[in-house]
Amino acid sequence: MTGIAIHRRGLMLVLSSPSGAGKTTLSRRLLESDSEIEMSVSATTRRPRPGEQDGKDYFFLSTEDFGIMRNRGEFLEHAKVFGNYYGTPRKPVEEALARGRDVLFDIDWQGTQQLDETAPEDLVKVFILPPSVQELEKRLMTRAQDSAEVVASRMGQALDEISHYQEYDYVIINENVDRTFEDLRAILVAERQRRRRLIGLSNFVKQLREAR
Amino acid sequence: MTGIAIHRRGLMLVLSSPSGAGKTTLSRRLLESDSEIEMSVSATTRRPRPGEQDGKDYFFLSTEDFGIMRNRGEFLEHAKVFGNYYGTPRKPVEEALARGRDVLFDIDWQGTQQLDETAPEDLVKVFILPPSVQELEKRLMTRAQDSAEVVASRMGQALDEISHYQEYDYVIINENVDRTFEDLRAILVAERQRRRRLIGLSNFVKQLREAR
Repeated sequence: MTGIAIHRRGLMLVLSSPSGAGKTTLSRRLLESDSEIEMSVSATTRRPRPGEQDGKDYFFLSTEDFGIMRNRGEFLEHAKVFGNYYGTPRKPVEEALARGRDVLFDIDWQGTQQLDETAPEDLVKVFILPPSVQELEKRLMTRAQDSAEVVASRMGQALDEISHYQEYDYVIINENVDRTFEDLRAILVAERQRRRRLIGLSNFVKQLREAR
Repeated sequence: MTGIAIHRRGLMLVLSSPSGAGKTTLSRRLLESDSEIEMSVSATTRRPRPGEQDGKDYFFLSTEDFGIMRNRGEFLEHAKVFGNYYGTPRKPVEEALARGRDVLFDIDWQGTQQLDETAPEDLVKVFILPPSVQELEKRLMTRAQDSAEVVASRMGQALDEISHYQEYDYVIINENVDRTFEDLRAILVAERQRRRRLIGLSNFVKQLREAR
């Protein structure tokens, strides 16, 4: 291309689904197959588990530091889960987007709603549905030694998550994980071509028109 | 999948570009590679050329019949070009969309604006840009024996078309036709997964939730 270069602003890809619908596998494959997207790293006040690295798995913060960041509006979204705080620091995401890199989020409907308030233009929201309730139950139960109560509670949570599917841009029913993955890849490739993400386009067109 | 089937409503894919940006090649490849999309057939009052088939290349109409259809609102868009009328009959498009088939349109910004007024929800608008003004000029001139005046007039028309790029959802700069084609395919595949095109989703989710 001659003259003015066009580059793109990165996008924020949210993948939500009830647990047991295949989201983790899809995220991993997407990150492995595409060098322009990276996983969002959350901050948390919970203790590191063995092998977890600060800045890679999580940013591990004290409750006090988390509170300071939250009060300064330095999280794109945050929540309290089982007594611990979790949040997405705004700065690394902003820097990635500005460099034209995409960021993948594995968050639930509550986090998605918060992202939609803070950065709706950058957001691409995909919801993965299980093909049937039987399939969902099966996948929730294969987690080995769980009691019936635990499974029932997970199912309740899954159905609560599903009730929010209408807040998403795209819905994929995960009948076949390869097919679902191809659909998800297509969404990512397509959304990168959205006019509003392309920077320098108006100068490029101006140049085309003035070169006459 | 058990129980309630989900199907999708078709979409209207508009491909616009200045002539010489590769649109015709891209349209042909898309139609050849994908069995779920078909070309929109326009109606026209101009005479058939040798080999053109009524109902395949165009619907050939008398000026009177064209006027009657137009007055009844039976065109999604219409225009007068060099003394002849052209228009997109609404009914075949509506029927294709309802059957879950996609329809491809090769129309300019004026036709696109009209489609956007009549069927914005079904519309996916893609604009193809040439990589540079040199490349555009080269492609406009390779049409053999044209005079400098004809080339200049085509260039003027091309630049007029380009000035409307901001009215489109997606913009692809056609530096490499294979890459552009892949991007275009991704847009089609992605847009088929848009939540609002999926029919039966709310019943499907209701069934998932009630099966608990």
